[in-house]
Amino acid sequence: MSEFKASKAQLQSFIAQALCAMGLPQDDANTVGSLMADADMQGSDGHGIIRLVPYARRILAGGLNLNPNIQIEQERTAMALINGDNGMGHLVMKKATELAIQKARSAGIAWVGSRLSNHAGPASLYARMALEHDMIGLYFAVGNANHLPPWGGLDMLLSTNPIAAAIPTWKEAPVVLDMATTVAAYGKVKAKAQRGEMMPEGWMIDRQGKPLLDPTKSDEGFLLPIGGYKGYGLSLVVGILAGTLNGAAMGSQVIDFNKDDTTITNTGQAIAVIDPSAFGDIDEFKRNVDKLVQELRGADRMPGVARIWLPGEQSFEKRKQHELHGVALAPSLVKQLNDLAERLEIAPLASLGV
Amino acid sequence: MSEFKASKAQLQSFIAQALCAMGLPQDDANTVGSLMADADMQGSDGHGIIRLVPYARRILAGGLNLNPNIQIEQERTAMALINGDNGMGHLVMKKATELAIQKARSAGIAWVGSRLSNHAGPASLYARMALEHDMIGLYFAVGNANHLPPWGGLDMLLSTNPIAAAIPTWKEAPVVLDMATTVAAYGKVKAKAQRGEMMPEGWMIDRQGKPLLDPTKSDEGFLLPIGGYKGYGLSLVVGILAGTLNGAAMGSQVIDFNKDDTTITNTGQAIAVIDPSAFGDIDEFKRNVDKLVQELRGADRMPGVARIWLPGEQSFEKRKQHELHGVALAPSLVKQLNDLAERLEIAPLASLGV
Repeated sequence: MSEFKASKAQLQSFIAQALCAMGLPQDDANTVGSLMADADMQGSDGHGIIRLVPYARRILAGGLNLNPNIQIEQERTAMALINGDNGMGHLVMKKATELAIQKARSAGIAWVGSRLSNHAGPASLYARMALEHDMIGLYFAVGNANHLPPWGGLDMLLSTNPIAAAIPTWKEAPVVLDMATTVAAYGKVKAKAQRGEMMPEGWMIDRQGKPLLDPTKSDEGFLLPIGGYKGYGLSLVVGILAGTLNGAAMGSQVIDFNKDDTTITNTGQAIAVIDPSAFGDIDEFKRNVDKLVQELRGADRMPGVARIWLPGEQSFEKRKQHELHGVALAPSLVKQLNDLAERLEIAPLASLGV
Repeated sequence: MSEFKASKAQLQSFIAQALCAMGLPQDDANTVGSLMADADMQGSDGHGIIRLVPYARRILAGGLNLNPNIQIEQERTAMALINGDNGMGHLVMKKATELAIQKARSAGIAWVGSRLSNHAGPASLYARMALEHDMIGLYFAVGNANHLPPWGGLDMLLSTNPIAAAIPTWKEAPVVLDMATTVAAYGKVKAKAQRGEMMPEGWMIDRQGKPLLDPTKSDEGFLLPIGGYKGYGLSLVVGILAGTLNGAAMGSQVIDFNKDDTTITNTGQAIAVIDPSAFGDIDEFKRNVDKLVQELRGADRMPGVARIWLPGEQSFEKRKQHELHGVALAPSLVKQLNDLAERLEIAPLASLGV
């Protein structure tokens, strides 16, 4: 069986048709389809079309508002709070990011938070939107399931609360950081379990604090935060900035969207946009970032290290590859998607046939 | 020999007198003395009076501007770039933070960066200034010596670039995170060496990538970033935001202020201040943070864990203890400080005599 590959247009169109068939207005379905396909294109495959089936489950269960009134609830010169009215997170955060970019253009920096939002895909998607405007994007979110106890604790009250940063460059690939505040994202644990592999020490611990290596027993333990208590602190701060500050869910209020399809998640996110042209000449800034990138890449390497990567370079390379050859989808995923297509009475996903 | 303990007033007055004797204007000397003493009070003892001797070395070598013209170089509604004119970092970042607080009051958020600044003490010092105004402070800085190569590399092009966040609470101790983006700060390595102890695995690696445990051999290896490549990315992003964006030193431009007393460091820092009252009722926000704190503290604990700490609680407790009993100073530090006092012809440090 040849590998199944899909182009961005195919991914986007399939997702949009599916969402439209479920009741999303055409424009909104196109927007979400484009953003989800973007996630696959940049290699964030845990946050792209793989999410369509769980999103569909929630939509069909009535857990998402298909016609939300996404509006600005609070506003000052350099900030806003957006009420997502329980719409798709992608729609909420796209609007939030566009507003932040617009405000940053005059104020120099802007911060827009969301409440009553939902899962919006990979963190870097929104941080990267600032790049087209030669601006810096910073993104923070409350994860949609708790996998992390406070340091020394047993109750999972925190999520992988991710941070993303996107910084424009001159000729180099933009610097794009997209990281969970845990050593491994939960999706990586699930992937190890699917492949029948053990996890390396340092990803998870059990309830006695001992290393947990078997990913099929992930329910018996917790993810480890990066840098131990530091990552716990970082996850908490990100959660307060993206959740509590916005009146969104945090701590025990977080709904596990893997297990609950109907309760409103009240997801909180935040996007900050900085306009470097407020600090000085924009081209000089971008050239200076390039110089720094080249300096880091050119550093002497440890034995066995073939290349020093900058944050964002691997996803930049993946996007180029995906544009040329399409995105490979696992057969099990293709089957799930085509089952959904049949249920929704839309055309199945077509392979590029490469 | 009874332990040497000093009150905040004694620390502040000694530091101010020493700086004044070295040529700082009285007001500036008082300001720096107060901030450095604050660092000791909150338990950031690697960034308090222990720094007076190295600061003095740089001042006496002519490496610091004692009468700087600290001024706003770029400004928009919600941002500013401050030129520190190579003055003491404390003076630069106090001015930057006060400006950020003032701007955040109307704009909702503000971001102020610095260039031509210098080492300014612990990161949390400036983030915490927002708390008195019921605001959130976020602080980023380029460290003043490179101890970290890019992930997989051998050339130390990055520093421990710290992050601090301070979040106001209702009755609980404020949530205050203050962390290097490395597993251990370099000061901790030096402390292990002084005590003749080995380092735990995970703090440093040698040039072959193997664990380095002997702190006296720290010159033969590097600090490890938190979460491996994630901490590398975080250190880089913090460095771009606090350094490159401001036209301050980053990468190979960073001056090792432990080894060079005269070259202008062109240190960069950034403070962001968010006014939670722009997002909703401030008391409700503070009460919600309290609830979250109590929920985390009340979590079931791992075997052997006596208490779950929130970020900032330990320094809050230390400050209370130090207010009651003074700050204990090591005999070797007291000797160094009193040698400096003799050289500057000021009164020696007096012990509380407890």
